[in-house]
Amino acid sequence: MKLKRNIKYFAHPTAEIHETAVIGDGSKVWNYSQIRENVTIGKNCILGKNVYLDFGVTVGDNVKFQNNCSIYHGAVIEDGVFIGPHVILTNDKYPKAVNEDGTIKTDADWVVGNILIKKGASVGAGSIVLPGITIGEGAMVGAGSVVTKDVKAGSVVFGNPAKEYAKES
Amino acid sequence: MKLKRNIKYFAHPTAEIHETAVIGDGSKVWNYSQIRENVTIGKNCILGKNVYLDFGVTVGDNVKFQNNCSIYHGAVIEDGVFIGPHVILTNDKYPKAVNEDGTIKTDADWVVGNILIKKGASVGAGSIVLPGITIGEGAMVGAGSVVTKDVKAGSVVFGNPAKEYAKES
Amino acid sequence: MKLKRNIKYFAHPTAEIHETAVIGDGSKVWNYSQIRENVTIGKNCILGKNVYLDFGVTVGDNVKFQNNCSIYHGAVIEDGVFIGPHVILTNDKYPKAVNEDGTIKTDADWVVGNILIKKGASVGAGSIVLPGITIGEGAMVGAGSVVTKDVKAGSVVFGNPAKEYAKES
Repeated sequence: MKLKRNIKYFAHPTAEIHETAVIGDGSKVWNYSQIRENVTIGKNCILGKNVYLDFGVTVGDNVKFQNNCSIYHGAVIEDGVFIGPHVILTNDKYPKAVNEDGTIKTDADWVVGNILIKKGASVGAGSIVLPGITIGEGAMVGAGSVVTKDVKAGSVVFGNPAKEYAKES
Repeated sequence: MKLKRNIKYFAHPTAEIHETAVIGDGSKVWNYSQIRENVTIGKNCILGKNVYLDFGVTVGDNVKFQNNCSIYHGAVIEDGVFIGPHVILTNDKYPKAVNEDGTIKTDADWVVGNILIKKGASVGAGSIVLPGITIGEGAMVGAGSVVTKDVKAGSVVFGNPAKEYAKES
Repeated sequence: MKLKRNIKYFAHPTAEIHETAVIGDGSKVWNYSQIRENVTIGKNCILGKNVYLDFGVTVGDNVKFQNNCSIYHGAVIEDGVFIGPHVILTNDKYPKAVNEDGTIKTDADWVVGNILIKKGASVGAGSIVLPGITIGEGAMVGAGSVVTKDVKAGSVVFGNPAKEYAKES
């Protein structure tokens, strides 16, 4: 079954957008980016170069993805979120290439750890978010962070592992 | 001299595979990946998007490379290894663009620090492995780690620098 | 206005070079790299695969950029600098996708934090440099660092946040 693509958004000729993806008006998808099956993207989003949205990822309006970020299956990204360059939203806490019997793992062979990035939050350059994490509304994750715990709304965290910013530190 | 390519593997049309590379049956090489001179890849491997295997890299069977990982010359990766997205296996401890005389360095101008990733090990998303490191059989390197010391077989390490996981910490 | 391109450098057919960019003799630009408006690159530079130079970036002679590095607007890189794979030179200390009124931010909506990498310095694999930082002449930033403070000439720093190397540590 082929769904008709919404043509009110811009896609660079080298972008690869699956026919089941839905993209809102005014959004822009730049070079070498890939949008997989059943992705939903809202209005006026910007996806930079070589962005990867895995199957089923859900994105609100006015979201910015910088170059080379990789967003895996299970992620939900609300309105006005900023995803910095090279950011990874992971989905597998104990990744393995093979099952116990030595055969290569498929999508059916693990439990996805869903990530939720709430309205207006920012994830700084090169940060990595572990499976199952929620980043609260308006929170800011500093560049180069590894986020291993939920982040409170409005807070600022950074480091590896990411910790909440405290003025006296 | 042109060697005949093994055609029992899948390569995306945008993948660039050098004619001297050998790739095992059932392996898949996805978009924008590049496989350089004299690389050897075993059977049933999966190379995601924009994976880079530098010249001479050796890979066993059932190995998974996620998007955007960069594997430099000198790396040996055994069967069943998982290499997460954006992982870098480096090979130069003191990288410099230029020699003492100001001329730009070439491949002949440094000593390669070989990396060995043993059977069934996993290197989590965004991790960086320094030159000369061995990661033991079945070991797990957590996401966002910088691996500066050898990792024991079966152990779990994470952090920058990566340390062995201890329950009391 | 179309400027005439200097044709004494090499560019891979998949590289995208803006017509206003100036590139010195003997430089090489590899696959999927992108060089934006008003970038200046000196002689004998090497840009690996999927390198991104944002508009207005200035690069000296004999500079090496490894695969997948992202250099944002405001960066000045002097002669003989080494930029490792996946390095990010950022330019926005408090990135947000949207303005206070909910509209998506444009280039006009923030103050750029300029980065200066001085002669002969090296930035190791996967490192991230925060806005406004200067890295001194001949300094070495270890792999996986997050550079949050200026780095002295000739010093060695690493870690997250990057600290100066001391033998007793």
